[in-house]
This record gives sequence, C-alpha cells and structure tokens, in this order.
Amino acid sequence: MTKSTLDTIKSVADIKSLSDLELECLISDLRRFIIRAVAAKEGHLGASLGVVELTIALHYVFNTPFDELIWDVGHQAYGHKILTGRQSVFDTNRQFNGISGFPRRSESKYDSFGVGHSSTSISAALGMAIASQLKGELSKHHIAVIGDASIASGMAFEGLNHAGVTDCNLLVILNDNAIGIDPSVGALKQYLTNVKKGTERQDNIFEALNFNYSGPIDGHNLQELIAELERLKSVKGPKFLHVITTKGKGLRQAEENQVTYHAPGKFNAETGDLYKKVDTVQPPKFQDVFGYTIVELARLNKNIIGITPAMPTGSSLKFMMEEIPDRAFDVGIAEQHAVTLAAGMATQGMLPFCNIYSTFLQRAYDQVIHDVAIQNLPVIFCLDRAGLVGEDGATHHGVFDLSYLRCIPNLIIFAPRNEIELRNIMYTAQLGLKHPIAIRYPRGRGTLLDWKQPFKAITIGEATCLNKGSAIAVLTIGTMATVIEDIIAHTEGFHDLSHYDMRFVKPLDEHLLHTIFETHTAIVTVEDNAVMGGFGSAILEFAAKHHYKNEVYLKGIPDQFIEHGTVFELLEDLELDSRSLTQFLSTLKPLK
Amino acid sequence: MTKSTLDTIKSVADIKSLSDLELECLISDLRRFIIRAVAAKEGHLGASLGVVELTIALHYVFNTPFDELIWDVGHQAYGHKILTGRQSVFDTNRQFNGISGFPRRSESKYDSFGVGHSSTSISAALGMAIASQLKGELSKHHIAVIGDASIASGMAFEGLNHAGVTDCNLLVILNDNAIGIDPSVGALKQYLTNVKKGTERQDNIFEALNFNYSGPIDGHNLQELIAELERLKSVKGPKFLHVITTKGKGLRQAEENQVTYHAPGKFNAETGDLYKKVDTVQPPKFQDVFGYTIVELARLNKNIIGITPAMPTGSSLKFMMEEIPDRAFDVGIAEQHAVTLAAGMATQGMLPFCNIYSTFLQRAYDQVIHDVAIQNLPVIFCLDRAGLVGEDGATHHGVFDLSYLRCIPNLIIFAPRNEIELRNIMYTAQLGLKHPIAIRYPRGRGTLLDWKQPFKAITIGEATCLNKGSAIAVLTIGTMATVIEDIIAHTEGFHDLSHYDMRFVKPLDEHLLHTIFETHTAIVTVEDNAVMGGFGSAILEFAAKHHYKNEVYLKGIPDQFIEHGTVFELLEDLELDSRSLTQFLSTLKPLK
Repeated sequence: MTKSTLDTIKSVADIKSLSDLELECLISDLRRFIIRAVAAKEGHLGASLGVVELTIALHYVFNTPFDELIWDVGHQAYGHKILTGRQSVFDTNRQFNGISGFPRRSESKYDSFGVGHSSTSISAALGMAIASQLKGELSKHHIAVIGDASIASGMAFEGLNHAGVTDCNLLVILNDNAIGIDPSVGALKQYLTNVKKGTERQDNIFEALNFNYSGPIDGHNLQELIAELERLKSVKGPKFLHVITTKGKGLRQAEENQVTYHAPGKFNAETGDLYKKVDTVQPPKFQDVFGYTIVELARLNKNIIGITPAMPTGSSLKFMMEEIPDRAFDVGIAEQHAVTLAAGMATQGMLPFCNIYSTFLQRAYDQVIHDVAIQNLPVIFCLDRAGLVGEDGATHHGVFDLSYLRCIPNLIIFAPRNEIELRNIMYTAQLGLKHPIAIRYPRGRGTLLDWKQPFKAITIGEATCLNKGSAIAVLTIGTMATVIEDIIAHTEGFHDLSHYDMRFVKPLDEHLLHTIFETHTAIVTVEDNAVMGGFGSAILEFAAKHHYKNEVYLKGIPDQFIEHGTVFELLEDLELDSRSLTQFLSTLKPLK
Repeated sequence: MTKSTLDTIKSVADIKSLSDLELECLISDLRRFIIRAVAAKEGHLGASLGVVELTIALHYVFNTPFDELIWDVGHQAYGHKILTGRQSVFDTNRQFNGISGFPRRSESKYDSFGVGHSSTSISAALGMAIASQLKGELSKHHIAVIGDASIASGMAFEGLNHAGVTDCNLLVILNDNAIGIDPSVGALKQYLTNVKKGTERQDNIFEALNFNYSGPIDGHNLQELIAELERLKSVKGPKFLHVITTKGKGLRQAEENQVTYHAPGKFNAETGDLYKKVDTVQPPKFQDVFGYTIVELARLNKNIIGITPAMPTGSSLKFMMEEIPDRAFDVGIAEQHAVTLAAGMATQGMLPFCNIYSTFLQRAYDQVIHDVAIQNLPVIFCLDRAGLVGEDGATHHGVFDLSYLRCIPNLIIFAPRNEIELRNIMYTAQLGLKHPIAIRYPRGRGTLLDWKQPFKAITIGEATCLNKGSAIAVLTIGTMATVIEDIIAHTEGFHDLSHYDMRFVKPLDEHLLHTIFETHTAIVTVEDNAVMGGFGSAILEFAAKHHYKNEVYLKGIPDQFIEHGTVFELLEDLELDSRSLTQFLSTLKPLK
C-alpha cells in the first residue's frame, strides 16, 4: 500500500510544501482517518468532517502555532489535532488518560485556547490580539473559527461588539453549516440563510459592527479558501469571513442525518452504517424519562412549557417539540435568555420546565438568582448531565451545581435516585410549588425497567430511609444511592449500615437528620458534586447549628478538575466506586 | 399655590384624560418632583429625567398594568413609580423599610418584572408575550424599555435573536442616550451614532433580526412619542422603536455632567449644584485604593492590564484609563466577554486585573470556571462591592461570591480587611502567581488614613492573628474584622477573645487552623457572605476532615434575600453589628 499523504505530514510545516494534487489527497486522507477513528472509538464526527478543507487551508496559510488559532467549542478540531502531531495517539481520543476530545493548552502548543463550551473564541482571540499589539508582535494573526449556532450566543456578540472598535489583527471565521448539535434557530440564522440565498437583503450585521466582511464562500473549495485567507492576511483590523460548509461532509449518512452523526457512536467505517444496538431490554436514559414525562404531564396541564437552549435531542425535549410544538421551545445556545424567558412566563402563571445541562447552567447563574429566585418564581429547572459526564471531561462535568445553587435563597434542590423519583418530582413540581426548584439528574441510564409507574406527589423536604441499621449512617444524594444500595445488598457485614436518600439538598429534612444524628455515631455523606460547599457541607452546617459532635465524613468530588474517561473509571479513580467505598466504610466498623 | 397637574394623577388612568397643555404641565411637574426627591434623599437622577416624556407617553398610550411594561435595569423608573401610586411614599426611596430604587413585582402591579441587573427586559417581556399568546390574550402588549448600554450586552442579543422569529406582540424601545452609568462603548454604540447622524449607513441590524424598526425619534417630543406608540399598537409582531433622549434632561448640570449626576448624592434642588462634601480627612474608598494602586503597579509592570465591564467610574479604573489608556479597557456591559478576554490576555503573559462588582460576576460564572480556572490562568479578579452594598438592595448585594467561587479548583480567594491589605494583595498578585485569584472588597471607605504604605508581599494562604486570647476564637474574613477589633478594643472583658483574620478563604491556612482548634473550645466565624457554603462552611469542612469536636458558630448572611438600607442598618437587622455580636459572644463566655 502506498503511503498516504496524511502519513507524510510530520508537522504543519509539511502541509505548506504540498502540491495542489497532494493537498487534494490530504483532504481525502484526513477525512478517511477521522471517519475510521470515530467509527472505531466513538466521538464527534460531523463537525470535523465539515471543516477538513478549512483546517488544511488555515494551517497552509497561517504560521501556526505562532499565529493563534482558536476553535470555538472544539467538536470540529479533530482534523486540527491529527495534523498537529496527534495522529499516532488519536485512538486514545476521549479515553481515560488519553487525549481530550477538545483543544487543550496543556496538550499541544497548537491548541491556543482550551474550549468545550460555546462562544468563547472571539473574546479569547481578541484578548490575545490586544496582548500582541501591546507586545509589538504586529505580524501575528489571531483567528477564531466559530459556528453559526455558537455565534448566536450572547457572549459571541459581546466579543464582536468590542472587537469592532479595535484595530486588532483579528479574523473571525464563521463556519456556517446551519446546525449546531441540532439545527440552528433564531433570527440570526434566518439572516444568514438569506445572505446565503443572496436574496433581497442589503443589511450586513457584521459590517454594521465594523468588521471587514467577506463571503460567503464555499468551505469545501480548498483553493478558494486558501486564496481568500491569503488575501485577508494583509487586510488590517477586524475581519469576518463567512464560510459555507456541510456538516458530515464526505460521508453520505452523516450529511443526510446530521443530528445522529454529530456523535454517532460506533459505526461501519466503510459503509457508514450505524451498528444496531443489541436489542436487550434496558432501563431508560434519564433524558428519555424526562422527555416522556414532560409530554405526559403537558397533555394534562396546559400551563406546562418546555424550554431547551439548543439541546432538544440531548435533553429529549424533542419529544415535546414534536407532540406539542406550540409549548416547547429551542431557544438556541442562549442559557441566559432561556432562564429569564422562563421567569417571564412564570409571572403569567405558566409552568416552565427549563432543561439545561448542569455545566451550562453556569452560563445563566445570575439569571437564576436575579430573575427567578429573588422574585420567587416557580420555574422548574431540570439540570441534565449533573455529576460526572464521562468522556467529555473537565469542561462538561456537572459537579459544581449543588455548591453554586445551595447558597441561593428560595430555591428547592432535589436529586432523584432513580427514574420513578424523577417522574414523581416532575409531577410534584407542576402541582403548584411556591418556589423555584432545581432537579438534577445524570447523563445516561437509570436502574429500573418498570419505571412507568403512576405518579405520586413528593413531600417537599422529605428524605427516605433505604436501610435502617445502627452506628453508621450513609447519606446519599441522587444516583449515588445506587452504589450504597449495592454495597448493602452484596457485601457481607454491611446489612447493619443505615442508608438514607436525602433527596432534597435544600430544604434539608431536618426532622430526619435529628434522628439520624441522635442514633448514629458516624455519618458519611456521598455525592457526585464538589465536596467544597456541596451536599456534605450542608450536613456539616446542620450539625454545627445543632451542636452535634458525631464524626462526619464527606465523600464527593475533590477540589480539582476531573479529566475524561468512562464514568465508572472516573468514580474508581476518585474512590467513589463501590469497591473503594466498601473499603472506606470497613475502616469505620470499629466505631460500632 | 395651585395644585400641580402631578397631584391630580391618582392613577395612570387620569393621565389619559389630560389635555395637551396639561400633559406638558405634567412633564414639568414630574421632572421637578424627581429633582426635588433625589436632591433631598439621594438616588438615581439622570436616567429618570431622561425618560419623563417616554414614561408619560407609555402610560398614556398603553393600558398598564394589563399591558406589561418592563424597564431594563430600572434606574430610569422613578417617573413610572411616581405615576403609579407611589408619589406619597417616594421619600422613602431606597431607604430601610422604604420602597425599592428598582421596579419590584412585590411593590406594585405596575412593576411587571423585578430588575436591577441589565439586559433582562427583552427576555422577560418575550416570555410574557409567549404566555399571552398561549392564553389567547391577543390584545395584550408587552413593552421592554432598554438603554443603549444595556442592549449591547449579550443577553439582550439572545432575547432579540429569539423574538425575531416569533410573531409575538412585543415592542422593544431603545432609549438611546449614548450613556449607561459611564459613556457607552463598542461597535453597536458607533453604529447607533451613525444611525442618529443619518449618515452613509444603510445596514439596519434590527431589521436584519426581523424586527419592524422605526425611528430614531425625539424622546423629548411627547406628541411625537404618543403618535408613534399609537401607530405601533396596531403593528403586529416584534417591533423596535429607537428613541433619542438626553440623560439628565431638564437640569442643566445633570445634562452637562451625566456621569456625576447619574446618582449625584444630595444637591440643591433649585440651583442643581452639588453640596460640597465637608472637607474632613477621611479614609479612602476601597475603590480609590484599587484605582490608585493599579496605576502605581502598572507604571512599574508593563504586563498589567485593567479591565472593567462598564464601571470605570464606579470601580475607579478610570484613573488607569486616563493615565495608561492603552492598557485599560472598558468593554461595556459584557462581563462574560471581560473574563474570557482576560483569559486570552493571560495566555500571552499579560497580567489582567479584571474588576467586576461581586454581584455582576454572577454573569460570568461559567467563564471563571471554564476559561480561567480549568486552564489555571493567572487572571486577577478584583471583586468590588462584595458583601452588603446598602441602598441598591437585594439585586446588588455581593453576598454569594465566597459560596459560588469556593468550589472552583485552582482559584485563590482573598478578602482584605483594610486598604493596606488590598494594596499588598494587588502587589502580590502581579509578582507571578501560578493561579487565578479573586480579591473581594466592599463598597465604600476603609478605616486607615495612612494607607499609602510601601508594598509588602503576602504569603499565599497565610492568615493573621490580630488578638491572642484563650477559649474562644473569632475567625473573620475581610472587613468584618473591623467589627471584632472594635469589640475587643472597647468592650470590657473581651480582651481575652482570640481574633484571627483568615484572609484567604482558599487556600485556608490549615497550619494555623490546627493551632486554633487545638487551643480554643469554641470557634466563631464571621463573614458578610451567605452562611450556606461560605467561609464558615469551609471551616466546618476543615474541622470535619480533621475530626475536631470544637463548637463552631457560623455568623453571616442568613438564607434569605436582603433588602435595601444603609449597610449599618442591614448589619444591625442581621445581628452582625458590633452590639449584636457582643451580645452573642457574651453568651459563649461560660464556655471558658
């Protein structure tokens, strides 16, 4: 077999010496490499396939890593990683101790800025460009590559608004494929569609913001890309290049089913066909329980509304968007807007279920406090992907929410330990709570096959005893209950361990806590949130207030950012898995 | 004296029956009432003076409170409050137990949405408008009045982006006076300036976002406003009215010195002249210590950069903007951008001091985690107005920062107890920290006259013993130290109280904490942050980890939103003042 052109690329400098024909070969090779790698090891496919030509053109034209190249979000940076020295380790992508699925400064000097969440690239690139001006590095280029879904987020607008009044050497490239993870939405998307059609519209938003606009150009025409990037190199000040690409380009199924092939799981690299999942009966994903349940409730209660910032598929709100479209809203990557929109609806007696990934609610923290909690509006936050999320890693773990939400007055915080609890708290929340509530649940499957039970209302603030023992009590929150239930069921000598599912981090079940502290020597709290300020910390505050002197042990996420890997690998690594906790609990036994 | 037209307004319905001449009288009366009220009792002046005509026109044309009227931020809503039944209580504005300086739902049915922070109005109004559509209230109007500084913030763009693809009966009124608290900045401001000049530009950003745009019109021409609002009532779908106003309109000094007269303090209502401050020598404001010190340091260290999101005057970063303009940036109301811009600069070896009010850092929480802390970039956050801020009230108190920052790995958190400590930690932070740091300090004056001392480096994580006693130790953070110092100095029998200024909430001085716990029976923590998850909670986590059984008492902000009043009134009310704490500590004495 002849050596592929890709294999000849030892550094990005090698790209610059390729002939036009070799560049075309490199395009094919890179695309094939990405397809094979993701087919075998999973990961994000469509975004990187869409920017193969753009990736090559950027490294061909610019002098990376001296010139700074920032990929917004980073799902599309696989080609960049492969061309910048990580081809040989790419089979470890997103795996425990392997390379990250996102650009990271600690991984490569070609990764100018760590990403994962959207819409940061313009601000970061502008910061670098201003620094370069101050340092007199006038020949240095700063390039932000941002998708049309990400540029519609408020933060990107803030970056454009500042950049437009500077004379920085900044190039913003809009990678316009009309889709994020789900199809893009909003007025800006319509505007971009009109621009692409070349119809009526004369207004140019980006020129109005002082950018030198060029495009739209075909992002799959390498020579056109190279020529335009070369031209832009000598244009001073903030520049905006509008590039049209097709997500999933080069794999028919990925082009035709862009949502599915965003991160398709394993598939046949030759045919592109997804491997059919083995058809065993499994407990449902929490996401589907949410999606199914909100439809069920919304059919009965006309005031229920569903809101997602750009995650209809990931959150399963799409079930409601399909069945009850006039009451289910995808507002795009706009968490701040999503929360205050929900607050506005709640003032009118509606019951908005605002579904946001735990890590993305960090984007709307002020709105939760200022627009919802201060006004005590009964918005129902469904925090998806709370706790450890697995392969997406440090930027995506939802391990801070209990800490950052717990200090907010008026807010109820609940974590279901299983699917039935999630259903019942959703049912309870729409019965007419007098406060906002945050319901946090993890990514992935629950534990129950018979989860579709009739609804039962949950008493706010009421915890549950799952096992009554003596001496030692374990207090869990959310699905960490499962680990302890497992230990009690399967480990000899542990039937005498008390186990309480506290359910509500706020308000705490103080009545039950008094009983627990009075009847046990040692208390162990277990959570998949940061120990600092989290659930365990709430228990310590209770104990201090009431002068209890029991030993209290806090188990949770330590004070460090957690890398990527399967959730089980990470739990093991953090000694929060069943074996580690058994071992730890054994050391307490003498206390009895 | 003849009864003024204003006095005849018992409800907004009365406005509708006024003749043109009476309306003109009402304009004068309302302006005079606002000037006299603010002159006597302080508050926000310029913004409300600028929208007197608009306020009257809105209540004249629309059917409030059925039609929903949302004032963005709310500084400009004094006229609205006075016309909607609060004239007689307006002398209690911003005072303890008085009416709020901002619109509040709990205060009046005319206040459709509580505000304080900027850029929420479009999202909230859209939420209400969608709810109205679903409820079949088709004749209902929803109006957001937003300034040109606020509309440049990302959240407002997110609201516009969503509204533009709905057919909601939403009217966005841009109150364009080219100034927020300080003059507006950014490309959008330049764009609006061009629109007003009527020059070259054809592009219309708001039309590009699917809004029916009209204007710009003169916001001080009542009849023109009424006519245009009447016309827009029958225009369907999202509408955008661009209104030009003058901040401070009607008071010469306020028009000429718009920054000073934003909230001028007491002044002569007849002449408009500010009352000269009595020229006693006082300790400086922490703000000025920050502003003076950053200039002093930046002269020595070329890598220092100053960043403020729209608060150059409030933060005193204006000192640096005047002296070293190429390294000091006002980025507008764009906290998210400010933080990630700083992160981008830090990757290039710059030392950005990012000055953000504690309450507004809530707007950039994700950026602190995702762009700064994960990458461990040494951004220096200066959190102004931490703790209780006084008259601005619930929306503005900076009482959550210790809780929401403490769970973030890699972040150092420091609170200076006085001006010298603030100077020294700023000095230390630019010596080359390996981590980001958050420095939180309060609004207003410190305690030291001789604060301009030579810099001394502070050892990261090192606390200070301020008084060595026995049995009981009080641990304070930040300026709450002063209250305890005062108690020890002036209360008989309290010289034996140990007092430690812990300085660093993170990392804690664990070495010293061991000594404290080993040599005292009871520990009292005092902070002006939420008790939930705050500084005291960190001490409990330390105690639990090391199995200390000392009594620990947590004093701080309880789990409720705190209203407005002077800081002293609020501390008294929360039993965090010197007298209350003395009383509390006395009850511990038997422990000795």
